[in-house]
Amino acid sequence: TINILLVGDSGVGKTSLILTLVSEEFTKDVPARVEQIIIPPEVTPEYVATSITDYCAKEQSEDQLIQEIHRADVICIVYAVDDYSTLQSASDRWIPLLHMVLGNEHTTPVVLVGNKSDLVTDSTIDDVNDLMRAHREIETCVECSAKTLRNISELFYYAQKAVLHPTAPLYQ
Amino acid sequence: TINILLVGDSGVGKTSLILTLVSEEFTKDVPARVEQIIIPPEVTPEYVATSITDYCAKEQSEDQLIQEIHRADVICIVYAVDDYSTLQSASDRWIPLLHMVLGNEHTTPVVLVGNKSDLVTDSTIDDVNDLMRAHREIETCVECSAKTLRNISELFYYAQKAVLHPTAPLYQ
Ligand SMILES: Nc1nc2c(ncn2[C@@H]2O[C@H](COP(=O)(O)OP(=O)(O)OP(=O)(O)O)[C@@H](O)[C@H]2O)c(=O)[nH]1
Ligand SMILES: Nc1nc2c(ncn2[C@@H]2O[C@H](COP(=O)(O)OP(=O)(O)OP(=O)(O)O)[C@@H](O)[C@H]2O)c(=O)[nH]1
Ligand SMILES: [Mg+2]
Ligand SMILES: [Mg+2]
Repeated sequence: TINILLVGDSGVGKTSLILTLVSEEFTKDVPARVEQIIIPPEVTPEYVATSITDYCAKEQSEDQLIQEIHRADVICIVYAVDDYSTLQSASDRWIPLLHMVLGNEHTTPVVLVGNKSDLVTDSTIDDVNDLMRAHREIETCVECSAKTLRNISELFYYAQKAVLHPTAPLYQ
Repeated sequence: TINILLVGDSGVGKTSLILTLVSEEFTKDVPARVEQIIIPPEVTPEYVATSITDYCAKEQSEDQLIQEIHRADVICIVYAVDDYSTLQSASDRWIPLLHMVLGNEHTTPVVLVGNKSDLVTDSTIDDVNDLMRAHREIETCVECSAKTLRNISELFYYAQKAVLHPTAPLYQ
């Protein structure tokens, strides 16, 4: 089983993303956190059983978060494309936390997920590229919208792929 | 220099994608084909000089196409998400052509690009996943729109990445 963990600031849409993936429709009223969801291999792009774990600071302790980080095969750091501070948190809070928990040379791939792409027309890719150059553990990036379903399947496909087909380390 | 070649059926939007990337705006009247464009390293996500080559069946011979395929470091097969036959062509015409030109075990990565995402709400990812499972040379996939600029920078980032950070071959 591939364990996908979603982290990121409160309100960026982690729970919405998970529920949208599972139900293929957007619901405005979502709980603060959903229980771990297991997706059977038949319905995943790479035919591998996949679990998705939500994180919510209001419902979980820092210790529980650290445990989930250890258990994850890939970590999606979610930000909201309409709120720059949540992207800033990726480099100020979330990436340093992964280093602290897993070590500076950790090999758990990270996917940077910009949610709420329905709210803006500009891409955040320039800032994201700077971040990706600074942090080699970021495998890839994607902008999506839980509301319009844009790039939702792709997001989970990229996360699976980061585990199953990791990029070779680059020594140029 | 990384050479990116765009192929795909006529009318899927290859020339529009290239011009949108370069000018950061969509123009309705595009020529059938644009000359090779060189992008300086400073403005590319991975800081590598990149050239983009357009292909147009109306203006080029099959021999010229074969030459371009040999010169390419990564090949984007473009289809239109609102026209299933153009995705069908990816597996019926374009991938077999690459095998014929480069050999069955070729290592030139392919990015599958679904353009005109502004015209549909559904994702083509299910069909694309089938294709990707059947053809391991497809590194990744992306849906984009030259018209709304959605995922345009990402497309060229994924193409660069397919060359610079190819996924390791998987032997499970
Ligand atoms: N416009 C728009 N709103 C969204 C999108 N995704 C989520 N939202 C809204 O953003 C708010 C927060 O969404 P949640 O899914 O609860 O966010 P969360 O990251 O789980 O937040 P915490 O559980 O507090 O960590 C809700 O009002 C959602 O309806 C989106 O793609 N577009
Ligand atoms: N709605 C929409 N139309 C697009 C998009 N991209 C291109 N088009 C339109 O599709 C038509 C074909 O675009 P081209 O860029 O000429 O397509 P091409 O793949 O270069 O075609 P050939 O040169 O004949 O191979 C034009 O009318 C474009 O305006 C898009 O993202 N959305
Ligand atoms: Mg939540
Ligand atoms: Mg053209």
